[in-house]
Amino acid sequence: MSRSTRQFEQVAVVGHFAAGGAREGQGPLAAAFDQVWDDDLVGETTWEAAEAKMAVDALEGAAHDGGWSLGEADVVVGGDLLDQLVSTNFAARQHHRPTLGVFAACATFAEAVGLAGLWCDRGSTRAVAGAWSHHLAVERQFRFPIEFGYQRTPTASWTATAAGALALTQGTGAVQLRAFTVGRVVDPGSADPMDMGTAMAPAAWDSLQRHLAAVKARWDDYDRVFTGDLGVVGSGILCDLANDPGFVRVHDDCGRSLYRPDQDVHNGGSGTGCVAAVVAGHIMPRVETGEWHRVLVAATGALFSPTSYQQGESIPAVAHVIELEAYRP
Amino acid sequence: MSRSTRQFEQVAVVGHFAAGGAREGQGPLAAAFDQVWDDDLVGETTWEAAEAKMAVDALEGAAHDGGWSLGEADVVVGGDLLDQLVSTNFAARQHHRPTLGVFAACATFAEAVGLAGLWCDRGSTRAVAGAWSHHLAVERQFRFPIEFGYQRTPTASWTATAAGALALTQGTGAVQLRAFTVGRVVDPGSADPMDMGTAMAPAAWDSLQRHLAAVKARWDDYDRVFTGDLGVVGSGILCDLANDPGFVRVHDDCGRSLYRPDQDVHNGGSGTGCVAAVVAGHIMPRVETGEWHRVLVAATGALFSPTSYQQGESIPAVAHVIELEAYRP
Repeated sequence: MSRSTRQFEQVAVVGHFAAGGAREGQGPLAAAFDQVWDDDLVGETTWEAAEAKMAVDALEGAAHDGGWSLGEADVVVGGDLLDQLVSTNFAARQHHRPTLGVFAACATFAEAVGLAGLWCDRGSTRAVAGAWSHHLAVERQFRFPIEFGYQRTPTASWTATAAGALALTQGTGAVQLRAFTVGRVVDPGSADPMDMGTAMAPAAWDSLQRHLAAVKARWDDYDRVFTGDLGVVGSGILCDLANDPGFVRVHDDCGRSLYRPDQDVHNGGSGTGCVAAVVAGHIMPRVETGEWHRVLVAATGALFSPTSYQQGESIPAVAHVIELEAYRP
Repeated sequence: MSRSTRQFEQVAVVGHFAAGGAREGQGPLAAAFDQVWDDDLVGETTWEAAEAKMAVDALEGAAHDGGWSLGEADVVVGGDLLDQLVSTNFAARQHHRPTLGVFAACATFAEAVGLAGLWCDRGSTRAVAGAWSHHLAVERQFRFPIEFGYQRTPTASWTATAAGALALTQGTGAVQLRAFTVGRVVDPGSADPMDMGTAMAPAAWDSLQRHLAAVKARWDDYDRVFTGDLGVVGSGILCDLANDPGFVRVHDDCGRSLYRPDQDVHNGGSGTGCVAAVVAGHIMPRVETGEWHRVLVAATGALFSPTSYQQGESIPAVAHVIELEAYRP
């Protein structure tokens, strides 16, 4: 048994909320969003404040979908890509619920959901977990000033303007959070911040294998195995690493799901909000209805900073895994 | 009962390790450190890499003190002040244990220890939790280039070069982790990044009151109630807010403990490593010997970023509380 995997008997996912920006709202998951923000500023004065507003909307939406208000949540677990998690923390200043900030780059959502599950596993509690990212706030921080209008490379991902949150509680519901595997940091030596799929694929494979062994399952026990944000490039590498038709048959990728190929996003979507919105808006409804019975999500994160990149460091990556299952009484 | 407080019956703190830089090693806690790094670079080529090395040393030290090796830890929980938690994540690339990155500014250590407790509360597991900060890496990121040699204001804190970690496991030991209260974000409207004590004192008081109510205790049930990094200024404000001689009698502050007044640190120590080193090096040994039976630590964090500050935002703050108790069979 892996002691880095926690299996839950009694953690229900009772609410979900997904939202995206204008570009995401024109993509294939348009119908999956509970809300689309056509205004880049979401009514605020800065992109960072807009991202905090997105966080509040997502957390409130998930709590409402669970039949409560955010004010009734005992704990909020969340994170984002901005330095010092400012959107998560400035959102917490508004909603005023006890908040745990977490960071695993674009794997943050799975870490948040897993820890919310841990919180709800013992004791009658309500938790809301989520993640959010704003394309314009994130890009100017990580890469170049937006106004520079630089040419993106073919392997570059598009940081999504998106948010997603889940409401969890102890007990049973239509969807159960069954397990959570904490990822190890894996660094294949790639140093190109415009190619995060290559950097992250080995971490995804490491965590997926560890999860499978821990819960004693096979790939065909799952209706889908989603990775987060590997995109076209990273998904190809992952399937090569797996070298297993059984895995390839069930594999899908959140980054590949968020946009159509003609939306000029190259490798696909990324950003903390990408996996969050795809899980909350696309995956959750299908598990709720039983269309998919058992789904794995291995959210992947590229753990570089502008400083580490400028110092010539390669890009370490991590993947945290959550397992969702339709409840059969 | 507060559902934002978790009380533990069976979580033991079995190991601890504290370390500091040259300045910290000349302070009043010199004898409390398991290691003093006289070299600013800790043998590495950048301050950021030095901070990652500090993290590895602290995590390994705590595991060894607990009687295992870091390789036997099931989960590592940690965080730092650097953008995208690069020191925590680059340390995880070296030690390769499953890692949860957390961020609550200088309250990070208490969040990490609380979550490690949550992980160990159910199931036979080993966790190591810690936090670390490097003065030179943090200062150039948050304020001015070090070479600028700017004049610090009288209310400014000194970001410590320090690291601390605890090893936790399910069961009983000389010291038990008894409870963990998740903090709410409180913003008193202060906007001066050179005066974090003023920004953080109300959050400390909010979390301490909530913790006390949740565990049904009184101030004189504790031998000490430590706040993290309020320093001289913030400790004064906190004691004014408390307006209770019973609280003032047991209150102490990690930021005030780390340096002597003549060490030119003004308000006192701060940084994610400050509380971590004071808890691991100064508090833990006293609880182990029973000199102190029951101790609260409310680690405080100022949740600003250079971006939020430059956008004219005030500084929200949070305090997470952990309760340590000597074990009586």
